[in-house]
Amino acid sequence: MLKLYYSPGACSLISHIVLEEAGADYEAHAISFADGDNHAGWFLAINPKARVPALVTDGGILTENPAILNYIAQTHPHAGLLPANDVLLANQILAFNVFMATSVHIAFRQISRPGDYADGPAAARALADKVPELANGFFSVVERQLEDGGGPWAYGDAYSLADPYLFVYANYLGMGDRGDPGRFPGIAAHRQRMLARSAVKRVFAEEGLGESVTEWFR
Amino acid sequence: MLKLYYSPGACSLISHIVLEEAGADYEAHAISFADGDNHAGWFLAINPKARVPALVTDGGILTENPAILNYIAQTHPHAGLLPANDVLLANQILAFNVFMATSVHIAFRQISRPGDYADGPAAARALADKVPELANGFFSVVERQLEDGGGPWAYGDAYSLADPYLFVYANYLGMGDRGDPGRFPGIAAHRQRMLARSAVKRVFAEEGLGESVTEWFR
Repeated sequence: MLKLYYSPGACSLISHIVLEEAGADYEAHAISFADGDNHAGWFLAINPKARVPALVTDGGILTENPAILNYIAQTHPHAGLLPANDVLLANQILAFNVFMATSVHIAFRQISRPGDYADGPAAARALADKVPELANGFFSVVERQLEDGGGPWAYGDAYSLADPYLFVYANYLGMGDRGDPGRFPGIAAHRQRMLARSAVKRVFAEEGLGESVTEWFR
Repeated sequence: MLKLYYSPGACSLISHIVLEEAGADYEAHAISFADGDNHAGWFLAINPKARVPALVTDGGILTENPAILNYIAQTHPHAGLLPANDVLLANQILAFNVFMATSVHIAFRQISRPGDYADGPAAARALADKVPELANGFFSVVERQLEDGGGPWAYGDAYSLADPYLFVYANYLGMGDRGDPGRFPGIAAHRQRMLARSAVKRVFAEEGLGESVTEWFR
């Protein structure tokens, strides 16, 4: 039995969706950053980095979305979440996820957690002011990829680990002051396809994500 | 034949070392960020993100160090750079690399490229001022891992993709104003073991990295 530790609506949503897509045997446990659960001793014993997601397996603990996703896909090969016989494509999908983690995620955290980068209100304002430019640049790379790849998914015909990764950050893009969603019709259409998936609907219900999420980006 | 595009001393050094460790059939091509090579049309056709490393393979292009490393290890299994029959451990190693990419790399880029996060000299100062605290926190997690794992490598007895990843950022740690190397004796000893490897010596020679690099962290 796998156990996922998540915070509702946080980037752990990616691992949560992929567990559901894989048909994995798992339990999901919510923790509250507002209540400081991530700095509690019991949680630091699971993840000393004080972050979600964390996946507890029978053999040990795994953190970081790109690695958790690869683990789920490789241990549930019937789900077809990574190409079985194409090492290059599988790692291009990993590279896509790493790009999201090192660029888009960091940019959006400049708004949600500016103190992770610099101290003081003036620095926080400067960090937030830069985000629309950064997000528009990063999502332009993704939009071109969707155009060039022919869709409907991030890597063509086959749904893969890159799709829930993109979806979660496309949601954040629609939250305001973090880029111009209207410039990315391909990403908007991709998001609608994701919202229609039953696995996504089940996870949204389990995390208690409602209209305030699903109405973004219309 | 693989072709690696790198910038001397940049984080592409990680992929360069791993190609050499794997005994891969490859060519390495240096580009100059100072001369703007990364924004030239010919390079943007290879990597629209204008970054190194980029690995050109017969089947297509791969970017992002964690993905390039996994690709090299998976296509050169005889090199034993990832555990062959332990999916969890292989992805824990990936998680380590992703952590370095999303935390330590970002922190150090706050000094080298503050304009990637916020505009203006005041923001640049605030970003740089925060780096020692951030780096000391991140490397403390790694130091504890080295203590707990028993060494000599990041994941115990077996050299893996995590080792060159740690090594390159341990070098940067020693460049000044980015944390306190003296607090991390395990990482310092790991760095000495890495400097003694013949693959590392060959790549340092090829990238023209001299005493200014190898004298750090003594």
